[in-house]
Amino acid sequence: MLAVRPAVPGDWPELWAIMEPVVRAGETYCGDRERDEGAGRPGWLPGPAGPDPTLRVLVAVDDGGAGVGPAPLPANRGGPGSHVANASFLVSADAGGGGVGRALAEYVLQEARRAGYEAMQFNAVVETNVRAVGLWRSLGFDVVGTVPGAFLHPDLGYTGLHIMHRRL
Amino acid sequence: MLAVRPAVPGDWPELWAIMEPVVRAGETYCGDRERDEGAGRPGWLPGPAGPDPTLRVLVAVDDGGAGVGPAPLPANRGGPGSHVANASFLVSADAGGGGVGRALAEYVLQEARRAGYEAMQFNAVVETNVRAVGLWRSLGFDVVGTVPGAFLHPDLGYTGLHIMHRRL
Repeated sequence: MLAVRPAVPGDWPELWAIMEPVVRAGETYCGDRERDEGAGRPGWLPGPAGPDPTLRVLVAVDDGGAGVGPAPLPANRGGPGSHVANASFLVSADAGGGGVGRALAEYVLQEARRAGYEAMQFNAVVETNVRAVGLWRSLGFDVVGTVPGAFLHPDLGYTGLHIMHRRL
Repeated sequence: MLAVRPAVPGDWPELWAIMEPVVRAGETYCGDRERDEGAGRPGWLPGPAGPDPTLRVLVAVDDGGAGVGPAPLPANRGGPGSHVANASFLVSADAGGGGVGRALAEYVLQEARRAGYEAMQFNAVVETNVRAVGLWRSLGFDVVGTVPGAFLHPDLGYTGLHIMHRRL
């Protein structure tokens, strides 16, 4: 069984343990593959380390209480674009097949609705990450456009980045 | 005649004088309309105030040496997405008809090429800002997708945000 709750700073070591292999692999995430823990933290935890003090970060935890997926929930743009939430998830590779992504996404959609957001947007879903694309489609997201060649996959070479969107 | 050169911190008062009415109008730019000068500065000038110390910011200056348009030039994404430059321009309303946007964009495209970027991307061009959309199209950018209703225009209501892209 999974539960989803707001992240707290004490979650960071577990979250980084999930994020680090994803970042190092460079297959699904637009981050510097060599980034260290300090550079990885802003944006993935609330509080002074984050760029936005109002940022809410949710975390899925398994039976043992271990964090298996962080999900920040900021507005995707400022001002006249602030009614659209940004979608961003990182799920433990071990937990990938266990519905963690879906559980976390469903909770995040519900929280975003409750916070008054009118839509949600992914800015960069790697086209070759078919499991993720399929999951977001099954949750009501459409691909509104694909930036050609915008992601350099270590094995597959240049591939596209989907912008995915759904109304709430 | 216009010249384009790297921005320096001393340019800030003039740049803010250009940016402030654009931000307050809320018609073309995704920023908090009430933001103060301090919140407006990060990202638009190099140095310790910016989120990325490697950020280069270019500025177009007119005959009198006055800044009429800042243009930061960071990567649009990290790691496997870092070969695509972000495009972002703010042009003085007074200078809007004088080719400032075009001159600045042409220089930025050339600098981006020189820096080794392979493509350039706008993340959020307001669909109703037809002059900007037309200018970027004339410079070789295509609309790769439009996020429906992602921008709330003060007079026109909900409108789309284009993602625009060109290879370099």
